Amino acid sequence: MDNLGLVGMVSIFTAGLCIGLGAIGPAIGEGLALANAMRALAQQPDKTNTITRTLFVGMALIESTAIYCFVVSMILIFANPFWNHFQQGGA
Amino acid sequence: MDNLGLVGMVSIFTAGLCIGLGAIGPAIGEGLALANAMRALAQQPDKTNTITRTLFVGMALIESTAIYCFVVSMILIFANPFWNHFQQGGA
Amino acid sequence: MDNLGLVGMVSIFTAGLCIGLGAIGPAIGEGLALANAMRALAQQPDKTNTITRTLFVGMALIESTAIYCFVVSMILIFANPFWNHFQQGGA
Amino acid sequence: MDNLGLVGMVSIFTAGLCIGLGAIGPAIGEGLALANAMRALAQQPDKTNTITRTLFVGMALIESTAIYCFVVSMILIFANPFWNHFQQGGA
Amino acid sequence: MDNLGLVGMVSIFTAGLCIGLGAIGPAIGEGLALANAMRALAQQPDKTNTITRTLFVGMALIESTAIYCFVVSMILIFANPFWNHFQQGGA
Amino acid sequence: MDNLGLVGMVSIFTAGLCIGLGAIGPAIGEGLALANAMRALAQQPDKTNTITRTLFVGMALIESTAIYCFVVSMILIFANPFWNHFQQGGA
Amino acid sequence: MDNLGLVGMVSIFTAGLCIGLGAIGPAIGEGLALANAMRALAQQPDKTNTITRTLFVGMALIESTAIYCFVVSMILIFANPFWNHFQQGGA
Amino acid sequence: MDNLGLVGMVSIFTAGLCIGLGAIGPAIGEGLALANAMRALAQQPDKTNTITRTLFVGMALIESTAIYCFVVSMILIFANPFWNHFQQGGA
Amino acid sequence: MDNLGLVGMVSIFTAGLCIGLGAIGPAIGEGLALANAMRALAQQPDKTNTITRTLFVGMALIESTAIYCFVVSMILIFANPFWNHFQQGGA
Amino acid sequence: MDNLGLVGMVSIFTAGLCIGLGAIGPAIGEGLALANAMRALAQQPDKTNTITRTLFVGMALIESTAIYCFVVSMILIFANPFWNHFQQGGA
Amino acid sequence: MDNLGLVGMVSIFTAGLCIGLGAIGPAIGEGLALANAMRALAQQPDKTNTITRTLFVGMALIESTAIYCFVVSMILIFANPFWNHFQQGGA
Amino acid sequence: MDNLGLVGMVSIFTAGLCIGLGAIGPAIGEGLALANAMRALAQQPDKTNTITRTLFVGMALIESTAIYCFVVSMILIFANPFWNHFQQGGA
Amino acid sequence: MDNLGLVGMVSIFTAGLCIGLGAIGPAIGEGLALANAMRALAQQPDKTNTITRTLFVGMALIESTAIYCFVVSMILIFANPFWNHFQQGGA
Amino acid sequence: MDNLGLVGMVSIFTAGLCIGLGAIGPAIGEGLALANAMRALAQQPDKTNTITRTLFVGMALIESTAIYCFVVSMILIFANPFWNHFQQGGA
Repeated sequence: MDNLGLVGMVSIFTAGLCIGLGAIGPAIGEGLALANAMRALAQQPDKTNTITRTLFVGMALIESTAIYCFVVSMILIFANPFWNHFQQGGA
Repeated sequence: MDNLGLVGMVSIFTAGLCIGLGAIGPAIGEGLALANAMRALAQQPDKTNTITRTLFVGMALIESTAIYCFVVSMILIFANPFWNHFQQGGA
Repeated sequence: MDNLGLVGMVSIFTAGLCIGLGAIGPAIGEGLALANAMRALAQQPDKTNTITRTLFVGMALIESTAIYCFVVSMILIFANPFWNHFQQGGA
Repeated sequence: MDNLGLVGMVSIFTAGLCIGLGAIGPAIGEGLALANAMRALAQQPDKTNTITRTLFVGMALIESTAIYCFVVSMILIFANPFWNHFQQGGA
Repeated sequence: MDNLGLVGMVSIFTAGLCIGLGAIGPAIGEGLALANAMRALAQQPDKTNTITRTLFVGMALIESTAIYCFVVSMILIFANPFWNHFQQGGA
Repeated sequence: MDNLGLVGMVSIFTAGLCIGLGAIGPAIGEGLALANAMRALAQQPDKTNTITRTLFVGMALIESTAIYCFVVSMILIFANPFWNHFQQGGA
Repeated sequence: MDNLGLVGMVSIFTAGLCIGLGAIGPAIGEGLALANAMRALAQQPDKTNTITRTLFVGMALIESTAIYCFVVSMILIFANPFWNHFQQGGA
Repeated sequence: MDNLGLVGMVSIFTAGLCIGLGAIGPAIGEGLALANAMRALAQQPDKTNTITRTLFVGMALIESTAIYCFVVSMILIFANPFWNHFQQGGA
Repeated sequence: MDNLGLVGMVSIFTAGLCIGLGAIGPAIGEGLALANAMRALAQQPDKTNTITRTLFVGMALIESTAIYCFVVSMILIFANPFWNHFQQGGA
Repeated sequence: MDNLGLVGMVSIFTAGLCIGLGAIGPAIGEGLALANAMRALAQQPDKTNTITRTLFVGMALIESTAIYCFVVSMILIFANPFWNHFQQGGA
Repeated sequence: MDNLGLVGMVSIFTAGLCIGLGAIGPAIGEGLALANAMRALAQQPDKTNTITRTLFVGMALIESTAIYCFVVSMILIFANPFWNHFQQGGA
Repeated sequence: MDNLGLVGMVSIFTAGLCIGLGAIGPAIGEGLALANAMRALAQQPDKTNTITRTLFVGMALIESTAIYCFVVSMILIFANPFWNHFQQGGA
Repeated sequence: MDNLGLVGMVSIFTAGLCIGLGAIGPAIGEGLALANAMRALAQQPDKTNTITRTLFVGMALIESTAIYCFVVSMILIFANPFWNHFQQGGA
Repeated sequence: MDNLGLVGMVSIFTAGLCIGLGAIGPAIGEGLALANAMRALAQQPDKTNTITRTLFVGMALIESTAIYCFVVSMILIFANPFWNHFQQGGA
């Protein structure tokens, strides 16, 4: 259990926990938005373009918080500066 | 309990926890959206095409957060860079 | 408590936890959708075909998140690469 | 506390936890669906056949997530590959 | 604290936890369904037969998830293969 | 702290936890059902017989999940096969 | 810390936890039922007899889950078979 | 830390936890009932006698679950059979 | 860390936890009741006497569960039989 | 870490936890009551005196549960009988 | 890690936890009250004086529970009798 | 790990936990108030001055509970009497 | 693991926890406010200026609680007095 | 496990936890806002410009709390002053 091994293990666990937790909020938030978009479409079917455009721009903004988590997970797995330091012989 | 074994164990546990947690949010979010789509269809049956198209595009966007979790789980099980390092004799 | 035994134990526990947690979200999400489909059928009995078709396509999409969990559980029990490595004499 | 005993204990505990957790979601989801089916029947008693057919197909789909958990529990108790390995003299 | 004793203890604890957790969801789900059946009966007293038949078939389906838990508890207490193995002199 | 003592302690703790947890769900579920039965009686006082008969059959079904827990508690306290094994000199 | 003392301590703790947890559900369930009975009385004051009779029979059924917990607590304190075994010189 | 001291400590802790947890449910349940009784009085002020009589009988029934907890706390503090056993020189 | 000191510490901690937990339920329950009493007064200002009398009798009944907790806290601090036993030289 | 120091530490921690937990319930309960008092004032501005008098008497009753917690905290900090015992040379 | 240091650490941690927990309830309670005051003002703008006077008196009463927590935090930091005792050379 | 270091660490952790927890309540409370102020403005746009004045005075009162937490955090970081004592050579 | 290293680790962990927890409340609170502002705009489109001005001033006030957390995080990372003390050779 | 390794591990874990927790609140908050924006668009389709402009400015303000978390994560991974200190040979 030297530094290299422990940094690897912590990176693996954190990457999974981060995206696992971080997927809950955006998915529920987007679900709420989509659910109300359904109602809005049923109420104003003539404005489909306006509603869906606003919907997808907004959902992309919500999706961005999930993407932050995914980016952190990917950095921790594939571009982890701490892992690189120890792998290259750092003490 | 050398590094290889511990990295393997942490990878297994994280892979399961990540998809296990990450399936809760998207499933509930999609359920909310689908539930309101049902109401919208009952209210505006003439606009079935518009409603279902927006619904499935939106659900695919929500599904993407579950897929992030599934991708991380698969990476941890089948393409784990930390496991590969230690398996190839890394210290 | 060598690596083989520990990897086996962690795989068993993770497989159960993953499907156990992962069944909560999809089941509640599908329940919400089905509940509103009941209301929609009562409100627009003439559109049964449209409503049930959209319902079952949507529920299949929600079910997919439960299936991700089930797939990960099955991989961990029957096609676990870490277990295979250690079972074949890997250090 | 050799590997055989520990694998047995973890299998027992996981089997119970998995079905114990996994029964919560499906039961509540089916309860929501059935509750709204009651309302739908009261509102459109002439469509009993359509409503109950959709209801029971949907509930079977929800029940499937509980069955995934039950299957994993049964595999862990009666067809556990890790237990078999160690019981047949595996190290 | 040999294997036999530990397997016994884990079996006892898991049996209780499994049915204890697993009774929460079905009971609440059935309560929701029964509560709405009351409302449906008050709204359509002429359709008592249809409503109560659908109700009890549905509740039996929900009850099945509680029965899965009860079955696992009974297996763990009275037909536990791990306990049998160790009791018959297995290592 | 030999096996007999530990099995006894675990049995005591599990018996209490099992019925303690298992009483929460049925009680709330029956409360929901009874609460709506009150409303139904106020709305359709002429159908008292139909409503109360359905109510008490349904509540008995919900009560059954509490009884599963009570049965497991009683088995663990008074007919515990693990305790019997060790008490009769089993190793 | 011999077996007798430990069994005593576990019995005390479990008795309190069991009734402490087990009082939450029945009390809330009965509160829900009583709350709706108040509304029903205000809506149909002429049917006081029917409503209160159904109410108190139902509440007795809910109370029974609290009584299960109380019975287990009393058994653990005053008629504990494990305590009796060790107190009479059992090993 | 002999048996006498440990039994005393566990008794103290359990007594407080039991009544502390057990007061939550009844208080909220009675609050719900009383809250709806207020509404009922405002709606049917002529039936004050019927409403308050049913209310206080019902609240006494809810209160009984809090009293079970109080009784167990008092038994554990003042009439604890385990404490008595060890205090009188029991091993 | 002899028995006297440990009993003292456990008593202090339990006294605070007991009243700290036990104040949550009654305060919320009384708040619910008072909130609906406000509405009832606004709806039937002519029945102020009847409403406030029922309100304060009911709140006193809810308050009693908080007082049970306060009594147990006070007993544990000022009239603790376990502390007295050890302080008077009990073993 | 003699008795005096440990009793002091436990007293400090409990005092803070007790009032910290105990402030949550009363504050939310009073907030609910005050919120509905606002509505009542808006609905019956002519009965301001009756409403505010009942409101403040009721809030004082809710406040009393917070005061119980504050009293226990103050006793534990400034009039702690256990601390006094050990400070005066008690063993 | 003598008594003085430990008492200091526990005091720091408790002071922060106490005000951190204790700020949640009052803030939400006051928010509920203020939210309904907004509605009341919109409904009865002619009674602004009566409504805001009752609002601020009530909010001060809710604020008092936060102030209890703040007072305990300040006592623990700046006027801690246990710290003073050990700092002045108490054993 | 002498007293100075430990007091420093506990201060850092508590400062962050205190403001982290303490920001949740006020932010949600203010959000509730602001949300209803929006509705009130939409309902009574002529009374903008009265509504916003009451709103901001009330939000300042809610904000005060967050400021208590911020003050405690700042005291713990920059004016910590325990840190000062040990830093100046106190034992 | 000297003081310097431990203070650094605790500072890192606390900085992340503080802003991680502290972002939940303000984001939900602002979401509630913005959601109702949308409704208000739809109801009174002529008062856009008044509504958005009040909205953004209020949201800035809510944002301030998130900024407190961000400030504490930044202080702990970049201007930590405890870290500075130990880094400059303090004992 | 020297300081460098431990600081690295804590930084990795905190970075993931911080953004994982911090993504929940903003995503749900933005979802609420977007959901109501959908309703507002359906109610006032002529004011699309005003509504979407306010919506996106508000969502950017909510997004800022997620960005605080992302910034802290990035600082901890790529510009961590504690890591730099120890990497450059600091004790």
